[in-house]
Amino acid sequence: MSGGNVVEIQEIKTENLDADVFVQQKTSEIADIVGRGLAINALSGGVDSSVVTMLGHKALGDRLRTCFVDNGIMRQGEPERVVWLFKELGVPVEVVDAKQQFFDALRGLTDPEQKREAITRVFYKEVFGDLVRKSGAKYLLQGTNYTDVEETVAGIKRQHNILEQVGINTQEQYGYTVIEPLVQLRKSGVREVGRVLGLPEEMYNRPPFPGPALAARVIGEVTPEKIEIIRAATRIVEEELSSTGAFQYLAILHQDRVTGIKDGKRDYGLQIEIRCWESKDAKEGSPTRLPYEILEKLAESITKRVPGVVSVTYNITRKPPSTIEAI
Amino acid sequence: MSGGNVVEIQEIKTENLDADVFVQQKTSEIADIVGRGLAINALSGGVDSSVVTMLGHKALGDRLRTCFVDNGIMRQGEPERVVWLFKELGVPVEVVDAKQQFFDALRGLTDPEQKREAITRVFYKEVFGDLVRKSGAKYLLQGTNYTDVEETVAGIKRQHNILEQVGINTQEQYGYTVIEPLVQLRKSGVREVGRVLGLPEEMYNRPPFPGPALAARVIGEVTPEKIEIIRAATRIVEEELSSTGAFQYLAILHQDRVTGIKDGKRDYGLQIEIRCWESKDAKEGSPTRLPYEILEKLAESITKRVPGVVSVTYNITRKPPSTIEAI
Repeated sequence: MSGGNVVEIQEIKTENLDADVFVQQKTSEIADIVGRGLAINALSGGVDSSVVTMLGHKALGDRLRTCFVDNGIMRQGEPERVVWLFKELGVPVEVVDAKQQFFDALRGLTDPEQKREAITRVFYKEVFGDLVRKSGAKYLLQGTNYTDVEETVAGIKRQHNILEQVGINTQEQYGYTVIEPLVQLRKSGVREVGRVLGLPEEMYNRPPFPGPALAARVIGEVTPEKIEIIRAATRIVEEELSSTGAFQYLAILHQDRVTGIKDGKRDYGLQIEIRCWESKDAKEGSPTRLPYEILEKLAESITKRVPGVVSVTYNITRKPPSTIEAI
Repeated sequence: MSGGNVVEIQEIKTENLDADVFVQQKTSEIADIVGRGLAINALSGGVDSSVVTMLGHKALGDRLRTCFVDNGIMRQGEPERVVWLFKELGVPVEVVDAKQQFFDALRGLTDPEQKREAITRVFYKEVFGDLVRKSGAKYLLQGTNYTDVEETVAGIKRQHNILEQVGINTQEQYGYTVIEPLVQLRKSGVREVGRVLGLPEEMYNRPPFPGPALAARVIGEVTPEKIEIIRAATRIVEEELSSTGAFQYLAILHQDRVTGIKDGKRDYGLQIEIRCWESKDAKEGSPTRLPYEILEKLAESITKRVPGVVSVTYNITRKPPSTIEAI
C-alpha cells in the first residue's frame, strides 16, 4: 500500500556462520563505505557494541572514534574495566563523563517507562548527539543485531532510527551513513565473531545486562545514593553466583521499607530482592534452586556490607507470570 | 520518689502451674468481684482473649457480655469461625461490624506506626468504648499476661490503661473495675489454662498473629481491596505451611510494583513476600529451609489464584537484622 522501500535482511544462522570469513567481509565493507572519512561509535561494554568496536577498529584504525559514555549507573568498576580491556587490545576509547546529566534527568521519575525514556533521550539526544555533531564524523557504527530487527518489526521494540535519536533531522540525514555490520546475526553469532576478533571471553561471553543498567534494578526514583546501594549489592550477587552457571542473576533495590533491627533497635530499612534464573532464551525461566547455604550467605553479606539493607528475599516465581527483570 | 502505689505481680511459672486449681480460684475471684453486676470483654480470637472469655463465662454466665469486633482486617472466615467455636462451647458472642470505621481511619495512612495507632484508637475509643458505655457494664475483663506487664515496665510496650484507652476519664474511673485474671501467667501457662477450660486446640494453641491483623501484612496504605488480596494470599500460605511445624509463616503484600506478564503482555503487577521462621522465642530466627517444590507451588498458587499478583519472593534473611514481621 505505502510506497516505502522494503529491505529484506537475510539472517545468517549461527550454525552456518564462518566467523573468519564474516570478519574479513565486514571489515572490507566498512573500509569501503567509510573510505577516507571519519566514523564514530558508542561502546557500552555489551557484546554487540564491543564486537562493532573491534570490527570498526580493524577496518578503520584511527579513523574510528569510539566513545564510552559513563552514565553513572553502571556496575562497580565497569567503565574502567571496559576501557582497560580495549586498551590492552590496542583500541583507544574516549570516556565521556555524563553522570550528572543522567542523574539530573532521572530526578523525580518513578515510572519505569519514563526512567527508560529519560536515559535513552539523554544518551542519544544530549550526550552522543553532541559528540557526533562535534566530531564531524559522518559514519555511525551501530551494533544492531537480527533479534533487534525482528523485535522492531514485531512491535516489541520501538523503531530505533539512530539518526533521529541523536537529533539529526531529515534535512541533515542525507549527509550521514549508518553502518550496522551485525544486523544478520543472532547473539550467539555475534559472540562467535567477537571470539574470532580476539576479544577476551569476559567480553564476548558477557551475560546480558539491561540497557538502562543499574537504573533498571532500582524500583522508584533513581538517585546517586540508591545506585551506590544497588551497585554494592550487585557486586556481591555477581561474585557469589557467577560460578552457578545460571542464565542470569541480579539484585533489585526495592522502594518499600521493611522493619529491621539496627544496633538492637527496631528501624525501617531497605530490602534487596535476588533473582537467579534458569532459562534457554529468556522467553521462559524458572528460579535456580540455589542451596540455602548460598542464599543465607548472600543475605548475610548484603545486610552486613551494604549500608541500610535489613532484608533480602529470593524470587521463587517462574517466568511467566514473572519476568527476568523487575522493571 | 513518686508517691504512687507499687503493685508487685508474682509470676506463676508454667511448670508450677496447676491449671485446674487456677481455673477454680480465678472463676471464684471473678464471681466475687462482679457479684450481681455486669461485665464486658472483647474477644479477638487470640489465646489470651479466648481464655479470658471462657473463664468469665464460667464465673458469670449471662452476666458477661462478650463482643467480637469485626474490623475488616481479619483472615478469611476468622470472625465466623471464632463465633461458631464459642457457640459450640455454649458461649454467646456478639459480633460488632465496624469494618467501615476501621477502613475510614486507615485511609491515606502509609506510616506503619500511624496505621497501628489508628487501629488501636478506633478499637478502644470508638468501637469498644461505645459498647462499654452503652452496656452499663462496670467490670472490664482483660487478657493481659505477665509478658505484657514486663514489656510495659521495660518500655517496649506503651502503658496500656484500658479505661483511659476506651475514653473513660479519671472522674468516671472510680466507677469501673478492670479484671485481669491472666496477669501472672506466661503464654504457655495461658495455653494450659485454655486446655483445661475445654477450649479446642486450634484456639489454645493458636499461632501468634499480630494485633493489627492483616493491616500488618500490607506495606503502605491499607484499603479493602488490598486486604482482600493479602487475605487470599495468607490463606494459601497458611494452608500450605501449617504442616511444616514452623514457628511462624506469613505473607506480605508489597507496595512496589514489578513487571509481569498477563495474557502474553507485559504489565506491572503486585508482589507477595513469604516468610517462614524457625525460632524458639521470636527474639532470634532463621528462615525455614523449605524445599523448592513447596516454594514453587506456593508461587504458582498465589499468582494463579490471587488477582493482580505476578511475583512471589521468599525471605532468606535471619532475625536480626530482619524482624519476623515486615511492618
